[in-house]
Amino acid sequence: MKKGSRNFLALTLILTQSLSSFSQSDSVVIRKIFTEALTNGRSYSNLDQLANGIGGRLAGSPGAAKAVEWTKKAMIAAGADTVFLQECMVPHWVRGEKEIARFMGPAAERKALAICALGNSVATPTAGLSAGIVEVKEFSELEKLGKSKIQGKIVFFNRPMDPSRIATFHAYGGAVMQRVGGPSIAAKYGAVGVVVRSMSLIKEDAPHTGVTIYNDTFPKIPACAISTNDADFLSEKLKKYPESKFFFKMSCKMLPDERSHNVVAEIRGSERPEEIIVVGGHLDSWDNGDGAHDDGAGIVQSIEVIRIFKALGIRPKRTIRAVAFMNEENGGRGGDKYAELAAKNKEKHIAAIESDAGGFTPRGFGCTFPKGMEKQELVFLSWKKQFSPYFADDLHRGGGGADIEELYKQGTPVFGLQPDSQRYFDVHHTVNDTFDKVNKRELELGGAAMAALIWLITEKGFEGPGK
Amino acid sequence: MKKGSRNFLALTLILTQSLSSFSQSDSVVIRKIFTEALTNGRSYSNLDQLANGIGGRLAGSPGAAKAVEWTKKAMIAAGADTVFLQECMVPHWVRGEKEIARFMGPAAERKALAICALGNSVATPTAGLSAGIVEVKEFSELEKLGKSKIQGKIVFFNRPMDPSRIATFHAYGGAVMQRVGGPSIAAKYGAVGVVVRSMSLIKEDAPHTGVTIYNDTFPKIPACAISTNDADFLSEKLKKYPESKFFFKMSCKMLPDERSHNVVAEIRGSERPEEIIVVGGHLDSWDNGDGAHDDGAGIVQSIEVIRIFKALGIRPKRTIRAVAFMNEENGGRGGDKYAELAAKNKEKHIAAIESDAGGFTPRGFGCTFPKGMEKQELVFLSWKKQFSPYFADDLHRGGGGADIEELYKQGTPVFGLQPDSQRYFDVHHTVNDTFDKVNKRELELGGAAMAALIWLITEKGFEGPGK
Repeated sequence: MKKGSRNFLALTLILTQSLSSFSQSDSVVIRKIFTEALTNGRSYSNLDQLANGIGGRLAGSPGAAKAVEWTKKAMIAAGADTVFLQECMVPHWVRGEKEIARFMGPAAERKALAICALGNSVATPTAGLSAGIVEVKEFSELEKLGKSKIQGKIVFFNRPMDPSRIATFHAYGGAVMQRVGGPSIAAKYGAVGVVVRSMSLIKEDAPHTGVTIYNDTFPKIPACAISTNDADFLSEKLKKYPESKFFFKMSCKMLPDERSHNVVAEIRGSERPEEIIVVGGHLDSWDNGDGAHDDGAGIVQSIEVIRIFKALGIRPKRTIRAVAFMNEENGGRGGDKYAELAAKNKEKHIAAIESDAGGFTPRGFGCTFPKGMEKQELVFLSWKKQFSPYFADDLHRGGGGADIEELYKQGTPVFGLQPDSQRYFDVHHTVNDTFDKVNKRELELGGAAMAALIWLITEKGFEGPGK
Repeated sequence: MKKGSRNFLALTLILTQSLSSFSQSDSVVIRKIFTEALTNGRSYSNLDQLANGIGGRLAGSPGAAKAVEWTKKAMIAAGADTVFLQECMVPHWVRGEKEIARFMGPAAERKALAICALGNSVATPTAGLSAGIVEVKEFSELEKLGKSKIQGKIVFFNRPMDPSRIATFHAYGGAVMQRVGGPSIAAKYGAVGVVVRSMSLIKEDAPHTGVTIYNDTFPKIPACAISTNDADFLSEKLKKYPESKFFFKMSCKMLPDERSHNVVAEIRGSERPEEIIVVGGHLDSWDNGDGAHDDGAGIVQSIEVIRIFKALGIRPKRTIRAVAFMNEENGGRGGDKYAELAAKNKEKHIAAIESDAGGFTPRGFGCTFPKGMEKQELVFLSWKKQFSPYFADDLHRGGGGADIEELYKQGTPVFGLQPDSQRYFDVHHTVNDTFDKVNKRELELGGAAMAALIWLITEKGFEGPGK
């Protein structure tokens, strides 16, 4: 018998036992949670205030500071027992003036191109940068081309996201290293600038920003994203006119670190208050849209978890904390700070859940349990039936979130809310990530799903037949 | 042992056998189908032509006639072996001039209200109709009020769709009889007109049209839908000013039946051509939007099934027919005609699948098998695993479609594609059911899911361990 089969049998056994061990009250409470979210929900009106009212809120910006204040108030309004801030220093990158780019082929073919600076990028020289341009689709092509063909040039990373991947995050995962690591890898071969095809599955004119991470070993060179329409244009023209130049001008820069905050709302547990369950999203967003899906949704859903417990008069056995993490997009300092304080204060985090994949219809949760917690993992997976009535029962291994990764390293099981992913990369990191793209019910269902999972964890821990 | 448990065990056994009986090629072919749809799909550009290019296409209208011609061409372009029309006579209802309504309370409170005629409704008198108005939420209230309080009045059916239902079609099912049957029931008690709260889960200004079916026993009285915002306004004002009148003016009318057509595309089966599998949607739509979700999506997805089989060079064992049914919205004559001809020609339909729930991310299929086909049903349910990689594996009992109901009565198992339902009633039967509300990938996935199901049926029938 193979190992997989034995696991399957064990799981089946646990499932069977576990299903019968559900008290009627679990499903009744979960039904109440969903009804509360769908009939009296505040996540949508909260998102209107955060996204439309405050707008873009990149770490260190005035928008982020306003968002911290707003979140504190919204958490108090939701009925949290305690709301507090956690100070952290964050990188303060600013985009500067609107970026300009131009295809510099034969006169008749010249055209302005839609670009935006990658987050953390350095500026071009004040007058802009013009250079020959080399298109590649794989990092390995750089090694083949070698320094002689890259030195002094701009590298154009143009591998599209793979549309045949059903989960669009897999398509993203297959392409995003071009943006995150591409600039430094190109610099290694002497490139003077980088243009990256936007991480998008549609043909469109909006460029998608997102973080790039420089490797300090190599020079920092300016890097931008180009819209998919203009990436296709550029690629086509370069085939005809390979000697063409590419011009771009960006004035973005990194300022000194800025003081900012995580915002934390707590409901104190009645029986085991020392056992903490975190539910969160990130409060910062890119500057071009209003960050409604990324990650206003996760913020208002996390606040909604607090509100739902209070509105239903549920006093959880364990402590629930809704956390609005700062600086996920270009530094992760908020997540680091939270985990640092958790360790310093010897807090016991038994679970951390993140919503950071958009405010779309929830399909389930992915989980990552630390080694040695296989039985607890099976308990979690056995809760599938509780989510089936809500079409959110895809409970599976693999998942978490950037802001709770450090908690995971400290031994906390982590969970990621998994919404339907088809529309996410249409708006991700662009001017189109705006409140009007969020559907009220889809958003509400995500908050309810998280509240339901938290109910199960607060009442049971991960005990039960699996332990 | 209870009957349910025995069925569960039987199913488990069949599942186990059935899974092992899958040839590698099933999953490989299905993977190819999805890749083809997502990388070379034509459903989205076809929908652009149908919805944006032709627009609203209520049965009997010039738009519907154009849509028949367009569909024929699109089916030929998709590579069908044969394309043919089936003539049918359809009701020809026209909306006339834009409807007008006004709340006639105290002078300071008077307000124009957003209404639209229900499909098939008779007109008001030319000068409009003004009468007292009685709000009810249940048909049973009419009986309690009695003729004395309803005679000469307008009845206002104001029961909202229940937002706590997770599947929005259940919420729709719980409210829509107010629209379909309300006018005749109100007329039974002497009402002179009917206003129905729009079938919507959001607060909005767009009224939702939809069919009403008169009972010939009672007078036909004019009936309209009112936007949810104005339904709330009206309800609030009627509490303060119960003696207020309601005025509305509509010039809609039913003209003589019009000649129209179903459009059918066929790929002839290689081994059992006499066994036919239908996949379809309805070609007509309401007149206020462009019918992109309802049901342009089902049409282009059905055409896409043909295109995918041809593009992949798959010659199915059984015959596949993509059918664009005419007149689902206000008569169902196309579905009736198709079934009538099937019976007359002694055709053997082994399955019929309809997509008529919007072009959203597919979640699975509902099925309804005729009595005596329980084993075949288990075979279908055992195919769940084939759809799991595509997150569309919710195969369950209950489902079909209005256009294939007559085929079901003839003994054909019927299936309904089940997309995510959260956004559907935001746009359903309104000016907002337009092409821009459709997401390309979501639409493509639905067509691929239908092609995958058809692949399994064409190759296997419903034979296998379950039979």
